[in-house]
Amino acid sequence: MSNLTEKAIKKLNNRGVEIIDIAEIVYDLQKKYISTLTMDDCIKSVCTVLEKREVIHAILTGIAIDEAAEKNLLDEEINDIIKKDDALYGIDEILPLSIVNVHGSIAFTNFGYLDKLKPGIIGKLDKLGEEMKQCHTFLDDIICAIASSAASRLAHKNRID
Amino acid sequence: MSNLTEKAIKKLNNRGVEIIDIAEIVYDLQKKYISTLTMDDCIKSVCTVLEKREVIHAILTGIAIDEAAEKNLLDEEINDIIKKDDALYGIDEILPLSIVNVHGSIAFTNFGYLDKLKPGIIGKLDKLGEEMKQCHTFLDDIICAIASSAASRLAHKNRID
Amino acid sequence: MSNLTEKAIKKLNNRGVEIIDIAEIVYDLQKKYISTLTMDDCIKSVCTVLEKREVIHAILTGIAIDEAAEKNLLDEEINDIIKKDDALYGIDEILPLSIVNVHGSIAFTNFGYLDKLKPGIIGKLDKLGEEMKQCHTFLDDIICAIASSAASRLAHKNRID
Amino acid sequence: MSNLTEKAIKKLNNRGVEIIDIAEIVYDLQKKYISTLTMDDCIKSVCTVLEKREVIHAILTGIAIDEAAEKNLLDEEINDIIKKDDALYGIDEILPLSIVNVHGSIAFTNFGYLDKLKPGIIGKLDKLGEEMKQCHTFLDDIICAIASSAASRLAHKNRID
Repeated sequence: MSNLTEKAIKKLNNRGVEIIDIAEIVYDLQKKYISTLTMDDCIKSVCTVLEKREVIHAILTGIAIDEAAEKNLLDEEINDIIKKDDALYGIDEILPLSIVNVHGSIAFTNFGYLDKLKPGIIGKLDKLGEEMKQCHTFLDDIICAIASSAASRLAHKNRID
Repeated sequence: MSNLTEKAIKKLNNRGVEIIDIAEIVYDLQKKYISTLTMDDCIKSVCTVLEKREVIHAILTGIAIDEAAEKNLLDEEINDIIKKDDALYGIDEILPLSIVNVHGSIAFTNFGYLDKLKPGIIGKLDKLGEEMKQCHTFLDDIICAIASSAASRLAHKNRID
Repeated sequence: MSNLTEKAIKKLNNRGVEIIDIAEIVYDLQKKYISTLTMDDCIKSVCTVLEKREVIHAILTGIAIDEAAEKNLLDEEINDIIKKDDALYGIDEILPLSIVNVHGSIAFTNFGYLDKLKPGIIGKLDKLGEEMKQCHTFLDDIICAIASSAASRLAHKNRID
Repeated sequence: MSNLTEKAIKKLNNRGVEIIDIAEIVYDLQKKYISTLTMDDCIKSVCTVLEKREVIHAILTGIAIDEAAEKNLLDEEINDIIKKDDALYGIDEILPLSIVNVHGSIAFTNFGYLDKLKPGIIGKLDKLGEEMKQCHTFLDDIICAIASSAASRLAHKNRID
């Protein structure tokens, strides 16, 4: 595992996200298509996604924005918009495209699905944000992107093997 | 209404899709966010989406591919892949990006959601395709894109007014 | 002009970008296609682009990241990557998709073209960044997106009128 | 090499495109960044891009639409729009996103650059289309996407090795 991957995982952990939280979402997305799917398959797929440079950059950038907004370090007006995750603020859904795009169209449609339903850890992050306890405006969408990309990998791998 | 818009609506009708079918999906997507929403609002929003050149081009191109595949007019190998809407064929999810992208990130996430759940007419088209009665490989995704774009317009309009 | 648009223009000015700088790039992009094009047309088109909420959010977010990186306020590792605009860091090209996407495919291809050639103010910002005098990692790509979107508007308008 | 890859290469050849034509564009894009770059590196990178399922599907679908339009097999109105590659028809730039997106942001910006400049085989295809001798409305953009993706792979590989 590269240094940058380790760094990204540590940041995820610091912000309250474990790899197993993401793997559970992947499992729920794919179990109906792959009868033999195990949690181990899902964990491995998440880890492979986390090795890509684009993914690491997106994670570190997204969390950096969240943390800066949390500490009110950004320009007043945009700091407030980000912190309360304004309904018409859509940059947090654009940044994870750097993760989703490189994993093909199955990743892309699953991303929208997860972003609407917010299962598991995604909903937890979203709720912490709404209660203004922490700012996870970017992180919840990034988790959607990682989970949907890991699901897409499994879909492709399952067909090819 | 422009000639091209009329042409696009006629083609949708010919392929079994009425504007009201799309408006119903829009209504279900937005009613929980806009308490005063009426079916008329949704019909108007769908009609506005159908006036954009990009949208018309996407509809006419997508249906043209579906019809050509249905009549086996395309190169054998790709004709089969399109006709059976192979699980790993993703071009049908890419083409509607021309509709979704111009309507912002709310359109984009709703698109993935509809593509997974396939409510109403989307599911009907998908089923007709699976039974190999007709080919709607591109059309079902295009309907997802029109509905999610009309929903996005309502979300933005509602905030601004 | 809305408060948010004024705020965005003020931020652009503070970071060394005038509307006329962007309009000049638009003029150079479109003059060979529209024989009657004036600088005034280009200025108006840029201003219309700057009224869209997605565009304003992208500008304010991008500049906020640049400024935070400049002041070393972000997590060490990502702060350095952003500040030196690492060749394989691509998030700065993803964020402006929120601007480019809503303006259609002409905006999209012009964006890539400007990003490679870096004419006028884009090159100036890029050079200031390379010399580590200021951080414009996100801003230069955002200017590419505004200029290509304003050019796309003119292309569409010219055909329709 | 898979059957589908062979099929895609054969179709490219039939439509007048050789792998070496694409590799030359890749070489011109990357030679200033990679001093030791050879044509062999570029040919290999193009071949690797051609092994991806998304890429093969995009090639076969794009050429199928071009050929159907050439033979006037599509609905009259859209057939004409595609055949003359109308300036405001943008679906041909959307379909190749399925190739470009999976290869990251360097692929994405190079795509727009090639689409504007049309070097080598891209310009030849475009000219044949303009003279209405053949229809390459989709193919020229697909070649832009393959070349820019192969260039992106080299950029990433060069940094990592």
